[in-house]
Amino acid sequence: MESPGTHILLINCSDESGLIYKVSKIVYQHNLNVVSNAEFVERKFSHFFMRTEFSGEADLETLLDELRNVLPKQSEIKLTNGRKKRIVILATREYHCLSDLLVRHQFNDINVDISGVISNYNDLRELTEKFHIPYFFANHKNKTREDHDDEILKILQQLDPDFLVLAKYMRILSPGFVNQFQNRIVNIHHSFLPAFTGANPYLKAYERGVKIIGATAHFVSEELDEGPIIAQRVIPADHSHDAKEMAQAGRDVEKNVLAHALKLVSNDRVFVFNNKTIIFD
Amino acid sequence: MESPGTHILLINCSDESGLIYKVSKIVYQHNLNVVSNAEFVERKFSHFFMRTEFSGEADLETLLDELRNVLPKQSEIKLTNGRKKRIVILATREYHCLSDLLVRHQFNDINVDISGVISNYNDLRELTEKFHIPYFFANHKNKTREDHDDEILKILQQLDPDFLVLAKYMRILSPGFVNQFQNRIVNIHHSFLPAFTGANPYLKAYERGVKIIGATAHFVSEELDEGPIIAQRVIPADHSHDAKEMAQAGRDVEKNVLAHALKLVSNDRVFVFNNKTIIFD
Amino acid sequence: MESPGTHILLINCSDESGLIYKVSKIVYQHNLNVVSNAEFVERKFSHFFMRTEFSGEADLETLLDELRNVLPKQSEIKLTNGRKKRIVILATREYHCLSDLLVRHQFNDINVDISGVISNYNDLRELTEKFHIPYFFANHKNKTREDHDDEILKILQQLDPDFLVLAKYMRILSPGFVNQFQNRIVNIHHSFLPAFTGANPYLKAYERGVKIIGATAHFVSEELDEGPIIAQRVIPADHSHDAKEMAQAGRDVEKNVLAHALKLVSNDRVFVFNNKTIIFD
Amino acid sequence: MESPGTHILLINCSDESGLIYKVSKIVYQHNLNVVSNAEFVERKFSHFFMRTEFSGEADLETLLDELRNVLPKQSEIKLTNGRKKRIVILATREYHCLSDLLVRHQFNDINVDISGVISNYNDLRELTEKFHIPYFFANHKNKTREDHDDEILKILQQLDPDFLVLAKYMRILSPGFVNQFQNRIVNIHHSFLPAFTGANPYLKAYERGVKIIGATAHFVSEELDEGPIIAQRVIPADHSHDAKEMAQAGRDVEKNVLAHALKLVSNDRVFVFNNKTIIFD
Repeated sequence: MESPGTHILLINCSDESGLIYKVSKIVYQHNLNVVSNAEFVERKFSHFFMRTEFSGEADLETLLDELRNVLPKQSEIKLTNGRKKRIVILATREYHCLSDLLVRHQFNDINVDISGVISNYNDLRELTEKFHIPYFFANHKNKTREDHDDEILKILQQLDPDFLVLAKYMRILSPGFVNQFQNRIVNIHHSFLPAFTGANPYLKAYERGVKIIGATAHFVSEELDEGPIIAQRVIPADHSHDAKEMAQAGRDVEKNVLAHALKLVSNDRVFVFNNKTIIFD
Repeated sequence: MESPGTHILLINCSDESGLIYKVSKIVYQHNLNVVSNAEFVERKFSHFFMRTEFSGEADLETLLDELRNVLPKQSEIKLTNGRKKRIVILATREYHCLSDLLVRHQFNDINVDISGVISNYNDLRELTEKFHIPYFFANHKNKTREDHDDEILKILQQLDPDFLVLAKYMRILSPGFVNQFQNRIVNIHHSFLPAFTGANPYLKAYERGVKIIGATAHFVSEELDEGPIIAQRVIPADHSHDAKEMAQAGRDVEKNVLAHALKLVSNDRVFVFNNKTIIFD
Repeated sequence: MESPGTHILLINCSDESGLIYKVSKIVYQHNLNVVSNAEFVERKFSHFFMRTEFSGEADLETLLDELRNVLPKQSEIKLTNGRKKRIVILATREYHCLSDLLVRHQFNDINVDISGVISNYNDLRELTEKFHIPYFFANHKNKTREDHDDEILKILQQLDPDFLVLAKYMRILSPGFVNQFQNRIVNIHHSFLPAFTGANPYLKAYERGVKIIGATAHFVSEELDEGPIIAQRVIPADHSHDAKEMAQAGRDVEKNVLAHALKLVSNDRVFVFNNKTIIFD
Repeated sequence: MESPGTHILLINCSDESGLIYKVSKIVYQHNLNVVSNAEFVERKFSHFFMRTEFSGEADLETLLDELRNVLPKQSEIKLTNGRKKRIVILATREYHCLSDLLVRHQFNDINVDISGVISNYNDLRELTEKFHIPYFFANHKNKTREDHDDEILKILQQLDPDFLVLAKYMRILSPGFVNQFQNRIVNIHHSFLPAFTGANPYLKAYERGVKIIGATAHFVSEELDEGPIIAQRVIPADHSHDAKEMAQAGRDVEKNVLAHALKLVSNDRVFVFNNKTIIFD
């Protein structure tokens, strides 16, 4: 986990000669202490990614100006401080991903603040309130998808999260909603994507007779189950597992992979480029 | 690996009460020594599977008659002796799965006899002949798929294999050909099926940005890449792997999973039921 | 998870011909419905293990008598009903294994009743009581190991557990205590045993520069970290992980492997033989 | 695999401010094209590691002089060109690691030249010579360890390898021999070190009842099985595997992990520091 006081510089631009030199020169001249540094060039698109973590007192505005002067025109330059990200969790009725995040949060084992939990059921209220996190019930019944999403949006406006986490939220979000949170909604899908997109992946996995099942954490995009993948993990299955047993066995993988993805995202370790993630871990 | 002299009894029938009792009684009364025993009931279809490995002198015909008398009418009962299965390998130009099988065969680390290698190229002739295995070149150029498959069939008629192994054979077999070898053709597909069916799975995996890649050994059925899965394994991937590097990294998984599947098949450990495998390993 | 009403028959005896036949005959004659059946023979010691799960109304006393009549003299024969096992959890100050079990218990995702939590600190009281489980503080300060263990024993006498679970309980239990719960104490050790026995395994793993770390769930025996292993899992590590980061990464493995081991134990799937486990899963 | 013509710069020194800036400046001023770049700081010892891969025409002597001028005094600076490393393989009687390397070498799937195979038996001569690699028999019988090692040294003098690879070489090398090849001998040990050091690890694993077995590739140091670990992998085991079956199952892991370690070493991706490896992969 990043220590407070640390700054993280994220650069993402078309590749050209000398980028590392130019950036590291500016950081050096500001007398900053580089804690870690990582770069990657995507060869196919000649695109450069850099993540520098540093500590020390800096005139950050000047630093950014100097970087803008030496980097290519279309560069994305982001500088974050150690502030914890605020997240809001959306859930439906399954407890395991939500409880895992609530417990980690309580014991400071995840670098986020949970501002609230929103659900279209009340099943998880008691669990959530045990951990003193506000619980918002947004009933979907007798509402269009858009109306229901608008209701959620209103709750979100007051909570002002950096990221949304779909912890087994079993409804499809409307494109309008998704567009307002581009690359800021982390979902856990209970299959090894792109296998078994859509509903009931464990049933499909059982019917196909696969020998491995998995889970995928990804950013939500307008195309269902097609957003950039952040993390995936798998576990063995065999003929003795029916769909229900696969689902049960899959829960541990789901909660672990979601927590892992959230750790990466909350520590500014994930770039999105061309529907893929570049991850510096 | 099964010791020579061992018999393997495979039973596959609709489930009913007392099946284990009835079978074990007959085996016991023949004074046979049960080396291992395994059963499974597929609950959804109420279907029973049993594999019994035993040693000892037995009147096998009588044994089979007695089993037929007590088991349900549509039962499949199979009794194999320790004879090594004969396989023929089909390959194209990639060496890694073929070489792995040739070396294991030479050092008796796989329970099959390799009767020959058939390829639509000559690239792998030298490798194959190093290990004193007959190599058959079946040129596909200027032939219809059916004519080419017929040419392969003619070679197979003289080799009389129990199983065919597609060790990176990069052509689609015609339905007529496949039908003659139902559940007797083992293929290695270089993805974690059902993700990335069809051609170029590593390129597709790269483009989708998956974090895990894999390989699948399966029986070939008329539906391309849809046959019963025997074994699957995966390895991690990340943004730093392009399609070519994924392919390279995938080779070790491919050869391992193919050899593992062949080990299961050659030791009579695999039942096929409803396009799925039941495996007693 | 086993359905209620199910019975589980566990047999463990020296091997001889016809054991499966003899047992399955008796079960069949009682008109019981075999749900699943598994056997194993440890060749080196010629020892036989069998686990039969069945449903149906049975005269269990008669069944047991009949089994004793046909099985070898020193056989261990155990017949359990579907009653949930009672466990007591011992913990110290780390939350992750305890919270995982408390949450699973609350949502019926583990087949045990938690009768209480005992700890030599009060750090985990609030967490435990959130889930309405009694918390017992047993201070170890200014006490001999034996006196402290006696205090715990007194609490255990009123709770009467089937199993104890050491969920990161960081004290060594006295031999006298261990003897009273032979093969009934499940511990989680935070290394891939037998590597890094004793204290500070993550520090030792860091210093040795291993590329994989793990966790081991095992029964506690008089020899520290030498009891029968129930389950093990691993995760990758590399030079960028210091001992503290390894410990953090290891927490997920620890809680998963402990929950998995407890699932096996609570469903009567584990035999202990010669300091090893035979597991029918 | 590195493309020919590429240069690799390896720097290893005590950490101080501005190192990345100073190095990248010099590389930039020589108009070199950085293909990939990676750095790591070991915090505990305040030590800096950097690997830069670049292409382009450079005055390498001047480049090195300039680097020496700006880097701390005790820095290790290494500059390699794309020349393939020469290796000599030592083996005893087991075929699987040797055959894997021979086949990869023949199909250019490993970035080394195999100059020869040395063995204290003749079992693997036929296999080796199939692939047109010189085979040297160095009989150990009736010789002291030192005399036998001297005989091997004489063969090595003519072959002049960059690295030695112990592909299941089942003899302990004398300290004098090891000293001549510091961090240049790669061994495959058939256990998950530090578990089961010494002889017969699979037997020990069986007796301990572990649920996972593994293999470790490491540099050989004077302390048996204590040298820096390069790579480790594991596979599941259970009660049904005896020591022989574990050994058989372990072979695939052994050959894969050895090939992987050799790939890392041959591509200059491995630093050794304080008996540990820093790996940029």
